[in-house]
Amino acid sequence: MDLIADFLLRVLGQFQSPSLAFLLGGMFIAAMGSRLTIPDAVYQFAVFMLLMRIGLNGGMTIRESDPADIILPALAAMGIGVMIVLIGMVVLSWLPGISRPDAIATAGLFGAVSASTLGAAMVALEIEGMDYEAWVPALYPFMDIPALILAIVLAGMGEAKDAKRRITPWMIVKDSLRGSALSALLLGLLLGLLTRPEQVFESFYDPLFRGLLTVLMLVMGIEAWQRLAELRRVAHWYAVYAFFAPIAHGFLAFGVGYLLNMATGFSPGGVVLLALLAASSSDISGPPTLRAGIPKANPSAYIGSSTSVGTPIAIGVCIPLFIALAQVVFSSP
Amino acid sequence: MDLIADFLLRVLGQFQSPSLAFLLGGMFIAAMGSRLTIPDAVYQFAVFMLLMRIGLNGGMTIRESDPADIILPALAAMGIGVMIVLIGMVVLSWLPGISRPDAIATAGLFGAVSASTLGAAMVALEIEGMDYEAWVPALYPFMDIPALILAIVLAGMGEAKDAKRRITPWMIVKDSLRGSALSALLLGLLLGLLTRPEQVFESFYDPLFRGLLTVLMLVMGIEAWQRLAELRRVAHWYAVYAFFAPIAHGFLAFGVGYLLNMATGFSPGGVVLLALLAASSSDISGPPTLRAGIPKANPSAYIGSSTSVGTPIAIGVCIPLFIALAQVVFSSP
Amino acid sequence: MDLIADFLLRVLGQFQSPSLAFLLGGMFIAAMGSRLTIPDAVYQFAVFMLLMRIGLNGGMTIRESDPADIILPALAAMGIGVMIVLIGMVVLSWLPGISRPDAIATAGLFGAVSASTLGAAMVALEIEGMDYEAWVPALYPFMDIPALILAIVLAGMGEAKDAKRRITPWMIVKDSLRGSALSALLLGLLLGLLTRPEQVFESFYDPLFRGLLTVLMLVMGIEAWQRLAELRRVAHWYAVYAFFAPIAHGFLAFGVGYLLNMATGFSPGGVVLLALLAASSSDISGPPTLRAGIPKANPSAYIGSSTSVGTPIAIGVCIPLFIALAQVVFSSP
Repeated sequence: MDLIADFLLRVLGQFQSPSLAFLLGGMFIAAMGSRLTIPDAVYQFAVFMLLMRIGLNGGMTIRESDPADIILPALAAMGIGVMIVLIGMVVLSWLPGISRPDAIATAGLFGAVSASTLGAAMVALEIEGMDYEAWVPALYPFMDIPALILAIVLAGMGEAKDAKRRITPWMIVKDSLRGSALSALLLGLLLGLLTRPEQVFESFYDPLFRGLLTVLMLVMGIEAWQRLAELRRVAHWYAVYAFFAPIAHGFLAFGVGYLLNMATGFSPGGVVLLALLAASSSDISGPPTLRAGIPKANPSAYIGSSTSVGTPIAIGVCIPLFIALAQVVFSSP
Repeated sequence: MDLIADFLLRVLGQFQSPSLAFLLGGMFIAAMGSRLTIPDAVYQFAVFMLLMRIGLNGGMTIRESDPADIILPALAAMGIGVMIVLIGMVVLSWLPGISRPDAIATAGLFGAVSASTLGAAMVALEIEGMDYEAWVPALYPFMDIPALILAIVLAGMGEAKDAKRRITPWMIVKDSLRGSALSALLLGLLLGLLTRPEQVFESFYDPLFRGLLTVLMLVMGIEAWQRLAELRRVAHWYAVYAFFAPIAHGFLAFGVGYLLNMATGFSPGGVVLLALLAASSSDISGPPTLRAGIPKANPSAYIGSSTSVGTPIAIGVCIPLFIALAQVVFSSP
Repeated sequence: MDLIADFLLRVLGQFQSPSLAFLLGGMFIAAMGSRLTIPDAVYQFAVFMLLMRIGLNGGMTIRESDPADIILPALAAMGIGVMIVLIGMVVLSWLPGISRPDAIATAGLFGAVSASTLGAAMVALEIEGMDYEAWVPALYPFMDIPALILAIVLAGMGEAKDAKRRITPWMIVKDSLRGSALSALLLGLLLGLLTRPEQVFESFYDPLFRGLLTVLMLVMGIEAWQRLAELRRVAHWYAVYAFFAPIAHGFLAFGVGYLLNMATGFSPGGVVLLALLAASSSDISGPPTLRAGIPKANPSAYIGSSTSVGTPIAIGVCIPLFIALAQVVFSSP
């Protein structure tokens, strides 16, 4: 009984975190009809800073890590990404009013990963004082790319022998890696691995990323509200899926992370980040890849589901939920 | 005699402050025909940072303040905003070559408030080591909105029974609050009041605002020079009004602030900020509101008056003047 | 023998510097076909920050310097800029497949100076702990302007009596000074000389410039790769010149700096910066000036030479080379 009360208190305590506050603030002012906008150049730069920060830190840590430690979590991330797409496709296809391409594209977007949600999770863990292996955020592409590839390949298989425009998995990998999000992440990873960016990381990328993340959250809140109108025009089952999917995916990955913790000593903070990578749905890199890869799917359906419902749930519900869960589960008895 | 010499020395000392230096620098390079421009996205972001910084700090302080302390200064700010518009309308209408709508719009803009001037005043007070209640800058909307409403209502009354397009005061309030400037300020206020943004305030919004303010000042200096040409095309009395109005408004508000200081212990720094809120004229949020609300007024007249003359006088003359005045008036005898 | 091994080790050690790493990183992702771009507004702002930082620091130091110390290095910088253009014009005109206007424009661009290369050199010197007189980076215009003037005047002389469009040297000086790069540098210089920007310099312009420089380097790397295609379409001798010219110009200026060191005690770090000012070729301010001043020259030739070959060689080869050379030459025996 005490355990549940303690758990609920911890969840509530997370509600004053700046990331969630700015996200809700953005939704609030958009709902009030505010004309406040953040220039697109600032938004793009904030995303770049976030991904470079994740990449640089990941690269600098991998340099000093045992590669063996990373292989299992990376495989787990891939497996989770694939599972999310398969489950999502089955569930969504089974719901009324949702076409097969739309079901696959939506499942693909929820299998892919959101850098902003990941950033908010990192800041929340730091406030709680929960450590994690610094390479965990760099697992991002291991979950993101397989999910997008699987979705596009599944959608292509449905269309059968359309001989003219064959998309191979390798084309999707290349296209994903060339997108601005994964390019920035991988460039950061490479620079962190091969060069000595410690000083510029500590004086620029790391401190600015925290502040710019609040700006990103504000933009995402504004956009979440604005896309709600689009979402209302498509089947309501999207909203239902988008509400429950982040929580379910988070539990799935939390369970996998818990097994890794028992088997290899994977940190509790790492388990939380893995759960939140799974809970997040792509907002930056996924949509253009899917638009090109599954042209028959309706972007209003999958982008609206992710931006207006999935991301707010991932940040507002899943971050406090899985941090509190880890604090209870991993606390020394 | 010593008092006057001391006073003049203090005024001169303020001339090396970075805010004024960058403002004059911007005017200088514009006068020299420089092609240097600051990208609009950077300018907009700097304004956002400034207003969020004012709002967040205001909200965090109000949380710990006695609401009773704030009510009187807020009412004083409203009263001053209303007085400035009424005085300005009478004076300007009485000058030759100025139409009634132009007189009202110009008076409205000088009653409204400039966030950049306010930011420059805050930095100048800090350099002087003069403390103020941290919620004083958040009095901004209490002076700004009533001034704009009054101006638009007065202009509408003149036009009498134009039944088709009735603008109610509530519509002006809503429109003001939805503008990007007040949205950012009020969002910051709300986030400061209801959440815990201390860390991101101290590591991001507060330190960056000081630097970005110099960038804003540079932009305003460049714009002040460029708009002078526009101002030359309208009646010269605008320039005369714009030169003396900030000083007169500052003295009016300084007097009100002095009474508040005697009655309630309102801080000397607060008195200076109140005087400078009054001395400032709107450069960001006011013009579009007036353009929509008083369509018959000539924007070249009121924007030129404020940007090219009013703001440089408020920053270059009024900031040093009222800081020095407060140092003399409030120094222990 | 030990000396050479030591020298080569020092050169190799420079290869992990963040500036070079981000430049090569930019070239790498561009070569991989990445769609990552840095918004133009951010790039322009980064350049502004870099030049203001150089100007402010220069101005603040000149305030406390003996003007006599600066005159000789300034004259040396002018002489070097002029020499580079004359040598470049002779060498390039003598190579096959290069027209006279193209030869002069290319030589002019290599005589002019790159702010980003200069910034990278400053950061590299700081990492090595090599001090320099803080006004040395402000020698920038003393090399830049004479080189551009000479190139445009030489090109104009070739066209002889085209009476309609006479470009006087004073027009080129004015046009250079009004460009956004020199405007920002000189504004910073003036503000540093006449006002007290110490606080905003130390809290904003100086720390942010280091981080934004890595962003600039990334942009330059991307652009270097993209312009290679253009360069391939013109005579291959441009690439040969652009490869060797930075090194040769660096040695020329290093020699001049060495004489200044012996005559006046000019610092070893100052000698390196002078060499790197000479080794650099203009990427921001030079091209538009030349485009207007030598309309008959082909921009693909001179911009491609500078951006795709000259700048990478200046940063990747010349910075490590001349730092190591100075460490060997100026080390106490």
